[in-house]
Amino acid sequence: MNKLVSTVAVSVLLATVTHAADPPVPADLRETALEVFKPLPSTIPAVKDNRITTEKIALGKALFFDPRVSASGVFSCNSCHNLATGGDDNLETSIGHGWQKGPRNAPTALNAVFNIAQFWDGRAEDLKAQAKGPVQAGVEMANTPDQVIAALKSMPQYVEWFKAAFPGEADPVTFDNFARAIEAFEATLITPAPFDAWLNGDDNAMTVEAKRGLSLFMDKGCAACHAGINVGGEGYYPFGLIEKPGAEVLPENDKGRFAVTNTADDSYVFRAAPLRNIVLTAPYFHSGKVWDLKQAVAIMGTAQLGEELKGKEVDLIVAFLDSLTGKVPDVTYPILPPETDVTPRPVSIIPTSK
Amino acid sequence: MNKLVSTVAVSVLLATVTHAADPPVPADLRETALEVFKPLPSTIPAVKDNRITTEKIALGKALFFDPRVSASGVFSCNSCHNLATGGDDNLETSIGHGWQKGPRNAPTALNAVFNIAQFWDGRAEDLKAQAKGPVQAGVEMANTPDQVIAALKSMPQYVEWFKAAFPGEADPVTFDNFARAIEAFEATLITPAPFDAWLNGDDNAMTVEAKRGLSLFMDKGCAACHAGINVGGEGYYPFGLIEKPGAEVLPENDKGRFAVTNTADDSYVFRAAPLRNIVLTAPYFHSGKVWDLKQAVAIMGTAQLGEELKGKEVDLIVAFLDSLTGKVPDVTYPILPPETDVTPRPVSIIPTSK
Repeated sequence: MNKLVSTVAVSVLLATVTHAADPPVPADLRETALEVFKPLPSTIPAVKDNRITTEKIALGKALFFDPRVSASGVFSCNSCHNLATGGDDNLETSIGHGWQKGPRNAPTALNAVFNIAQFWDGRAEDLKAQAKGPVQAGVEMANTPDQVIAALKSMPQYVEWFKAAFPGEADPVTFDNFARAIEAFEATLITPAPFDAWLNGDDNAMTVEAKRGLSLFMDKGCAACHAGINVGGEGYYPFGLIEKPGAEVLPENDKGRFAVTNTADDSYVFRAAPLRNIVLTAPYFHSGKVWDLKQAVAIMGTAQLGEELKGKEVDLIVAFLDSLTGKVPDVTYPILPPETDVTPRPVSIIPTSK
Repeated sequence: MNKLVSTVAVSVLLATVTHAADPPVPADLRETALEVFKPLPSTIPAVKDNRITTEKIALGKALFFDPRVSASGVFSCNSCHNLATGGDDNLETSIGHGWQKGPRNAPTALNAVFNIAQFWDGRAEDLKAQAKGPVQAGVEMANTPDQVIAALKSMPQYVEWFKAAFPGEADPVTFDNFARAIEAFEATLITPAPFDAWLNGDDNAMTVEAKRGLSLFMDKGCAACHAGINVGGEGYYPFGLIEKPGAEVLPENDKGRFAVTNTADDSYVFRAAPLRNIVLTAPYFHSGKVWDLKQAVAIMGTAQLGEELKGKEVDLIVAFLDSLTGKVPDVTYPILPPETDVTPRPVSIIPTSK
């Protein structure tokens, strides 16, 4: 009896110290987390049909930063997937050729190699397929594969780099190899975070708040969609599973994966956002309409879980998300080959729309 | 007599080997050149009213690459002064806010610290004055000093960096200090070239053609304007001193330095272009209308020297210019501070023109 009373007293004391409303950090949190998530590897991941080599990475880096890949000579991959600002451009939707706006928020290039597929609707099966998209999109780079290859072939240094990256190929400067090289570079953009250090056994790598947030993140059901090595990016789910957000967040004309599969079930279905470095990549959602991460978490609560998360719960989940901010690898800014007489000239005029 | 004949024979032989039309490389070429030019220093130059420190350089690098300095969040200093492509953007004139075109070709940021003043018309006395221009130009970044400072102050990491770069200042995050930091970073953008190695005594650093070109460059009078450490950038001269080029190269509505000094003598007067890295920075002239360096040299011949240079002469001069292509210092791409709730949002709308 005495023992029971004192145990209760100690529990009350502990509860007071850690704030009554705060959920405790379960003793087996890491064990549970490791069933759901996975730390980033210390090495560059293997990529399907694309052996990663130093030469390919170097070429891919040059291409990633080269604005001459766009028709206007203004935009490089890095313009919208800026490695200085979380691998995205911090715009609602990107601005491209002729000051046109893209239809969806630019996703981060960081850790993108781990996503099940690329783009918000997963329409590109991997990064080499993805890399071909923006180059040709009229509202982005507005270029053509032929013009890109003509530009690259016009610069002898690029031809040398392609030869080194794709040895033994008779004609290595191709649009496929262009995409492969970019994929190789992007495969190096891995950002180990405090969450990884903690998953790997360092108890002090995450704050108590972040651990409580992680616990909540799993308990509430967030991890049902945002799981795996990228804390998301592994599957497709309807936005508004329980309750559709308003059109200001979920514009009605963008039906998401429906456009890819033409299946009614895929209306408003999107790839669950990978949450690594999410603190750096506002604004949020495919619409880019929400700038505040707390608001984004609250919207997810009502839309996906049917639950109005308490302010404190949102704070803790955001503390966890903060532990996903990782270290971007050092990238030495490339020196690109100079144009020659036969390099296609930049074209900034906006084609009259069809 | 015999001796004379054989000397003549040897001369004829030599002339044949080095091609009859080629001017010889004078024995005192380096001595003459050192009276006109100066090799780049091995250290960062001192800058007026701006002590260069490691902290200032680091801050300046972040600012130089930060697109949030522009109203739209699309353009950084590096957009038009791209360190990957010779410190400029390889466009006729730059594309800025709302897809507007700038009035003149973007000059290179490389070695710009050595120019007598900045911009084609020298209207900014130094790089810290220059750095304030594009930020506020409606056709470039379309921003205001207040908005830039509001953005920087909204990011705690920037405030820390400003404190470290300007120690002892009560309110270090100012537009003046923003410009000073960028100037400090730009002062590091020095590109030693084969020409410098040769000036410093390495006979083999330049090809024979480049040396012949240098000799011609001085003999023909090019070095009258393009002299000094930057092979230009030291004074103001009328474009079309002897013969005005056509309006397709020298547009009539751009009177150059006249707009700065309001002096009739300054009509069509521009700062002589600094020629370091000129091979990397096509297209040429303030109008950006000439893509071919040989053509640009030929135009200079007729316009400034009143002489139609022979094809071979142009080739040799271009060989000399090629020896001015230097090594850009390694720059690790910066990781920029994330926005906060109070960071001004990007504004991409184009203000209705006055």
